[in-house]
Amino acid sequence: MGPFLVITLYPGESEMIKTGIIGASGYTGAELIRLLYHHPMVEISLITSRQYAGEPLSACYPGLGHLGLTFEDHNDEGVLDQAELFFTALPHKASAGIVAKLVAKGKRVIDLSADFRFSEVSVYEEHYEEHPHPELFKEAVYGLTELYGEEVKGAKIVANPGCYPTCSIIPLYPLLKEGLISTNGIIIDAKSGVSGAGRGASQTTHFCEANESIKAYKVAAHRHTPEIEEHLSKASGSPVKVVFTPHLVPMSRGMLATIYATALNGVGRDKVEKTWRDFYNDTPFVEVTPGETLPDTAFVRGTNRCMIAVRENPSTGHLILLSVIDNLAKGASSQAVQNMNKMMGWPQDKGLKVPVLFP
Amino acid sequence: MGPFLVITLYPGESEMIKTGIIGASGYTGAELIRLLYHHPMVEISLITSRQYAGEPLSACYPGLGHLGLTFEDHNDEGVLDQAELFFTALPHKASAGIVAKLVAKGKRVIDLSADFRFSEVSVYEEHYEEHPHPELFKEAVYGLTELYGEEVKGAKIVANPGCYPTCSIIPLYPLLKEGLISTNGIIIDAKSGVSGAGRGASQTTHFCEANESIKAYKVAAHRHTPEIEEHLSKASGSPVKVVFTPHLVPMSRGMLATIYATALNGVGRDKVEKTWRDFYNDTPFVEVTPGETLPDTAFVRGTNRCMIAVRENPSTGHLILLSVIDNLAKGASSQAVQNMNKMMGWPQDKGLKVPVLFP
Amino acid sequence: MGPFLVITLYPGESEMIKTGIIGASGYTGAELIRLLYHHPMVEISLITSRQYAGEPLSACYPGLGHLGLTFEDHNDEGVLDQAELFFTALPHKASAGIVAKLVAKGKRVIDLSADFRFSEVSVYEEHYEEHPHPELFKEAVYGLTELYGEEVKGAKIVANPGCYPTCSIIPLYPLLKEGLISTNGIIIDAKSGVSGAGRGASQTTHFCEANESIKAYKVAAHRHTPEIEEHLSKASGSPVKVVFTPHLVPMSRGMLATIYATALNGVGRDKVEKTWRDFYNDTPFVEVTPGETLPDTAFVRGTNRCMIAVRENPSTGHLILLSVIDNLAKGASSQAVQNMNKMMGWPQDKGLKVPVLFP
Amino acid sequence: MGPFLVITLYPGESEMIKTGIIGASGYTGAELIRLLYHHPMVEISLITSRQYAGEPLSACYPGLGHLGLTFEDHNDEGVLDQAELFFTALPHKASAGIVAKLVAKGKRVIDLSADFRFSEVSVYEEHYEEHPHPELFKEAVYGLTELYGEEVKGAKIVANPGCYPTCSIIPLYPLLKEGLISTNGIIIDAKSGVSGAGRGASQTTHFCEANESIKAYKVAAHRHTPEIEEHLSKASGSPVKVVFTPHLVPMSRGMLATIYATALNGVGRDKVEKTWRDFYNDTPFVEVTPGETLPDTAFVRGTNRCMIAVRENPSTGHLILLSVIDNLAKGASSQAVQNMNKMMGWPQDKGLKVPVLFP
Repeated sequence: MGPFLVITLYPGESEMIKTGIIGASGYTGAELIRLLYHHPMVEISLITSRQYAGEPLSACYPGLGHLGLTFEDHNDEGVLDQAELFFTALPHKASAGIVAKLVAKGKRVIDLSADFRFSEVSVYEEHYEEHPHPELFKEAVYGLTELYGEEVKGAKIVANPGCYPTCSIIPLYPLLKEGLISTNGIIIDAKSGVSGAGRGASQTTHFCEANESIKAYKVAAHRHTPEIEEHLSKASGSPVKVVFTPHLVPMSRGMLATIYATALNGVGRDKVEKTWRDFYNDTPFVEVTPGETLPDTAFVRGTNRCMIAVRENPSTGHLILLSVIDNLAKGASSQAVQNMNKMMGWPQDKGLKVPVLFP
Repeated sequence: MGPFLVITLYPGESEMIKTGIIGASGYTGAELIRLLYHHPMVEISLITSRQYAGEPLSACYPGLGHLGLTFEDHNDEGVLDQAELFFTALPHKASAGIVAKLVAKGKRVIDLSADFRFSEVSVYEEHYEEHPHPELFKEAVYGLTELYGEEVKGAKIVANPGCYPTCSIIPLYPLLKEGLISTNGIIIDAKSGVSGAGRGASQTTHFCEANESIKAYKVAAHRHTPEIEEHLSKASGSPVKVVFTPHLVPMSRGMLATIYATALNGVGRDKVEKTWRDFYNDTPFVEVTPGETLPDTAFVRGTNRCMIAVRENPSTGHLILLSVIDNLAKGASSQAVQNMNKMMGWPQDKGLKVPVLFP
Repeated sequence: MGPFLVITLYPGESEMIKTGIIGASGYTGAELIRLLYHHPMVEISLITSRQYAGEPLSACYPGLGHLGLTFEDHNDEGVLDQAELFFTALPHKASAGIVAKLVAKGKRVIDLSADFRFSEVSVYEEHYEEHPHPELFKEAVYGLTELYGEEVKGAKIVANPGCYPTCSIIPLYPLLKEGLISTNGIIIDAKSGVSGAGRGASQTTHFCEANESIKAYKVAAHRHTPEIEEHLSKASGSPVKVVFTPHLVPMSRGMLATIYATALNGVGRDKVEKTWRDFYNDTPFVEVTPGETLPDTAFVRGTNRCMIAVRENPSTGHLILLSVIDNLAKGASSQAVQNMNKMMGWPQDKGLKVPVLFP
Repeated sequence: MGPFLVITLYPGESEMIKTGIIGASGYTGAELIRLLYHHPMVEISLITSRQYAGEPLSACYPGLGHLGLTFEDHNDEGVLDQAELFFTALPHKASAGIVAKLVAKGKRVIDLSADFRFSEVSVYEEHYEEHPHPELFKEAVYGLTELYGEEVKGAKIVANPGCYPTCSIIPLYPLLKEGLISTNGIIIDAKSGVSGAGRGASQTTHFCEANESIKAYKVAAHRHTPEIEEHLSKASGSPVKVVFTPHLVPMSRGMLATIYATALNGVGRDKVEKTWRDFYNDTPFVEVTPGETLPDTAFVRGTNRCMIAVRENPSTGHLILLSVIDNLAKGASSQAVQNMNKMMGWPQDKGLKVPVLFP
């Protein structure tokens, strides 16, 4: 058996797409590099970081040194011309400025910050701060691909959803849309791995503080709450308010949302599961956990998948919904790649079919 | 400075109390040994284990070998005569048989199993199995010391509470008793370290399965639910049903309950905190977490303390209660020691004042 | 942009290779499934497990349920005919029997057990037990691909190396071959994640026993010692004896060998690094860690890579070699895939180019 | 049984000793607070921190808030007069200045920094920096209590040893003193939990960087090397040079040293164990691990104990010594308390008898 030959032909597309990652030194940046590197349709032609500009990727991620990439400064002349499609993984507000520049150059952008996640500027400004480019809101599509895939296709700016909203909206959206649960009394008790706090060093992320510890944080005050409420309200057609409590769990990756909702008209497990299966029929990434198994973050580590389940609490009439994702993957970078696939008209699982790394 | 002299006098009590631990090879057994060993009023005169009978404690816990204890078989002649006060740390049902023998010998017993936790045999039998000694139910007191300390004093059998009930009932009891929250819609989302599953090897407790993972288990089906409901109902004077969801967290020790309740009459944080402080005024072990700090299991590791906090969710009228304990300590063995202190008329924090081990 | 078209042509090879995994319920089995599933040249046509025969893969690995695979029993009629190339991931001795059956059917086998790792039956029998098929030793090639790639190409049986030997031999082999270090006084202090102990439940692998713990085990008595010594002796041309001490580290995956050797003739870091670079010039998987960075198991998680480094201890004349791999990947399953690539004449990194999952 | 009465009499000592902790906001400070709080002979009359001066202890350690302590600034007028015995837990160099002030006031000091650990100023200055108070070297005693307990009794300044030196010197000292092992070729491969890096936030201590990772650091360059060599040289009577390699392990506490040494005159396990038992006969804190059990950091967590073991590697003539401590306890704060006990003429295990917290 000798050397082999592969011919890959895309109608009207003779080369791979050049992609750039702005702000590639954080965890979502590293995760984008991991995913894009082996994506068959793209190349990474640019990674930027103010802090590491001019240095090899290995200075920041020694385990990725063999990829041969070098950080550039996104403010340098011509840097933003090096790619066609961009991922911006910067803190909020900083992101909006770059997105504006890129859009002005005719580039398409998937923004992983919170800057374009709301339909109303006022909601953003209430929970974050003054927005430098409100005029771009109308160009942006909320990239929860399973819900808004059609809009994503044509979008100039895709606002990649927050991790908690992704994990929470996926199980709730179809049930509210179909009127299976009450819009009142929805409680989302969410648990996240430490990588959700980013790579910055702080006392919260210190190993000895996070290890052997679980705690809630930003109780009744987390900025993902209005993001969740916007889409649940859209689903139900009326305003939905939720209780949302995030927790920090001693693990690097993974997110679980345990959601409590009041069933309407005696809706039970079967009806909910059928509704989910119908609603998510056309996506390979949402799976109702089979049999009596309950979702576990370890089932989805490193993947773009969301596993969901439901159980009934007959004595009170509650449904308990369980939803797991990898906060850095479906909660950030792999969902960004899924959005890219949608934008480019590729199959949405292109480059995303690698199974879970377990254990 | 030469050798020193300590004279300790207890009126009517010239010697230390002899205590025995039945079923000392599990984690709660080891934790009892740790606590009783440096308790100034007792000595450990007996530890038993069927599996390790005749072997030194080091065969089971090498780190405790220097204590010089040896396992005996509780069925051997005379073994149950070696102590005055007993802790039984056996699986449910197995425990009831030994407790019956001990009571027949006039011994006092603190039972860490579920066998005497319910006031009604029927509730036990519905959730566990047929009870071999229903006649002893009337002798048993539920040892949530902060609530039932007076009854504990005179009890022959103290049923040491479950870990989840301890963590959940402490914050809820005073609020229900005072009518500050609705008896409907109470949701307890609880998170436990792996030691709660015991020392037995299983796939669930395998390091690689529990590490980098969070998952719910026994959703709407955990046997601690009726135990919680009994005491909440007692507090409110009417039947209370709760939604209770336990989760497994990748840490060895620690338990957090995040509890959602509907405030009545506009009750808010101040009123709740004042109620707690008044109610738990006479115990050194329940603390309202000061300032804006939220409870963290790392604050109570290895101690008998329970730290609680409350936050408001104004848009829905919910109160969010947070409660942390060490599942093996206040959730099991140190609460058992607290009960012993009560039974013996000693200060309830005798031998329990060691601060948290952190980190 | 419409649907796309991919034409893949392999001269003389119009279909993907069918592969089978015998004993797919353990961690190395799951890792093989992960890697083979997205390998572009193969399909998984068979997975077996005595325990799970007839059940879907999800019964054992819920996170892999979406792959749609079902366990079979390798003893059932015709099962071993369902693939062309086999991976055997069974305990030692059990493995040899199946390998013999497969070879008799003309199949090619990559055996992940220890059964064919030694050149001498007597060494195997001294450290393991009586070997049921000594006649097959001559058919087997030791699959440390970087060293024996040419022999692997034509082999019927490839004995996939142990994890500790892989991690230890890679840095040492070239130095002994070139006579840069003494054959005396080589000390290998190795540290492994818990997955190295397999998926079986035991007290050692219990989360609460392995967590917050580090310990040595099988000191001066581990069966990987003779495996290491055989290949180091081959490198140096004279018998090499080592001190080998394995340790268990509270992490799921990863292996680090810290190796102490006496430099000959003033050999230092530069010479060692140059020797390594020359020797491993033709493999994409061995990398000298650049600059002052030291190898970290987190740099190679989930990959087939081995990162190595060397430092000098001038006051004693020692070289300190550091080597990291993922024990389940390069230490087992991804090396098996690399061997498959060699056997089939494909590029050795086919299907193995996915970068590290970090964090 | 009514209230009890305890009368404690110390000849010539009618009150508890007042102790102060300078630099109490770090992990060793918190550990000192934990240990001194329940020590029966002392009270904590002062804790200081520049950063937290004026704030309650709970601002820094919420789990210790109930102790009712408040930070002061050690530079404030009169602060250093509030105690008789001081623990200084500051960074090196900063510590020496305070120690000088305290000694000038006639106070006794246990210094947890490196500032007074060497007998020669020149060695300190080679490995650290210029020393501000070389004149105090003659007042300081190296507080490895088991070796220098007699000198500690009368010392004004006790230099509390480093964690790695404590863990390494204890097993090696008697063997070198008795001439059982060669002074050449001693290799110390040490593994530490993350708390050894202190409480300061850094990328190294970030949960996601330390978790699922093991790596060496400061290879052949750690400043504890000369500290170890000084005392091994003292033991053997001739200069000893070692290879010392520290590693970072994903756990909060614990330290293991795996030590390789060449046996002289056929010395084996029995002789080594007997030598250890004889040498450490008068200390309750050094234990030869019984039977075939190997030391595990989990056996000593939170205690002042050091567990040691030895195994033979016949094919090379090496002895493998294993030694575990808790890096924050015997490696820092509980050893400081042991030194205080020695200084005060109290039993050395006063306040230190609490068994291991496990799991």
